[in-house]
Amino acid sequence: MELLDKLNWRYAAKAMNGEKVAQDKVNRIIEAARLAPTSSGLQPFEIMVITNQEVKEKIKPVAWNQSVITDCSHLLVFAAWDTYTAERINKMFDLTNDIRGFKNEGWENYRQLLLDSYPQRDAETNFNHAAKQAYIAFSQAIAAAAFEGVDATPLEGFDPEAVDEILGLREKGLRSAVLLPLGYRKEEEDWLVNLVKVRKSTEDLVTLID
Amino acid sequence: MELLDKLNWRYAAKAMNGEKVAQDKVNRIIEAARLAPTSSGLQPFEIMVITNQEVKEKIKPVAWNQSVITDCSHLLVFAAWDTYTAERINKMFDLTNDIRGFKNEGWENYRQLLLDSYPQRDAETNFNHAAKQAYIAFSQAIAAAAFEGVDATPLEGFDPEAVDEILGLREKGLRSAVLLPLGYRKEEEDWLVNLVKVRKSTEDLVTLID
Repeated sequence: MELLDKLNWRYAAKAMNGEKVAQDKVNRIIEAARLAPTSSGLQPFEIMVITNQEVKEKIKPVAWNQSVITDCSHLLVFAAWDTYTAERINKMFDLTNDIRGFKNEGWENYRQLLLDSYPQRDAETNFNHAAKQAYIAFSQAIAAAAFEGVDATPLEGFDPEAVDEILGLREKGLRSAVLLPLGYRKEEEDWLVNLVKVRKSTEDLVTLID
Repeated sequence: MELLDKLNWRYAAKAMNGEKVAQDKVNRIIEAARLAPTSSGLQPFEIMVITNQEVKEKIKPVAWNQSVITDCSHLLVFAAWDTYTAERINKMFDLTNDIRGFKNEGWENYRQLLLDSYPQRDAETNFNHAAKQAYIAFSQAIAAAAFEGVDATPLEGFDPEAVDEILGLREKGLRSAVLLPLGYRKEEEDWLVNLVKVRKSTEDLVTLID
């Protein structure tokens, strides 16, 4: 399967060479994230696409000074909703009705179920749930980058509050969840590029209940 | 890009017809999950693959009686570590050294950094972190199913504690995070199959910082 070939090809580049990724490739990587399934279809996240070098320079020190932050082409910041609100839930259900051109009673009942439960939960629970949905999209962006022959470095090593502050995310009701620098590997400075991919065995990963 | 075609093809089947998915297809779907990147390479999750009909019947009532639970071919349960322990962290770092055939000082320092921080955090924080890694693998399994022409229904609507109890997950240091029934759609009973896919626009999803 071609997807497996691509997943075997990819790795988390630890050094990038500053080369720009073509915009059509970036667009397709983002499209994969946009198409990702999310719980109740709410897509409770946004993606900041940073090419501004000064902003990248500000983020680097709050991301363990990792060089890929500034040497990448496009820095993707997956930012999840800080909580679920009635307004946000209604917006997605209304969009669904608009696009499909009709209201469905079962779907409206389901909307009400979410309205009666999500906004009442504490914000941290809701952010954690939203962040998981962002990870689904993040993961499909990683796979899409591999299809484009673009290196992508999944990156959790950063101070989320500092990144929120730099990007003004809290004012938008968002919190940074995970980063994905896109670019091209700089082989001569990347300690990981020639090392074997390590994964636990299928036997250690899977339990069959038959 | 072929991945985008597959992501456009897929949807969350709401009814399945009980047809079996060939084992080689299931194997490749699981392989995509196995290859998924995870934080520090820890792969802090396992996958239960349920084909036993009695076990599926037990899970159905604690999953909103969704018919795909019993009408799927293989029910995948992504179960994340209930916490990070020194033993679990060491096992993955030792595996890395075994596979690569050498010890690296930087890598050993990084192991110590994790040992000095992760096991001391509260279990809920660690489980949430581990669950996010499981979602990365879950997402790549969803994409892989689409490549195989297999329907997959991302499913969060279940009582995690009840599923943990049915599968004896807590005794293994695991907690159920998310479900993925694999099978084939039953078009005549699926209200979703002919509806247009709804996603927010790229403009609403993406902010460019250039």
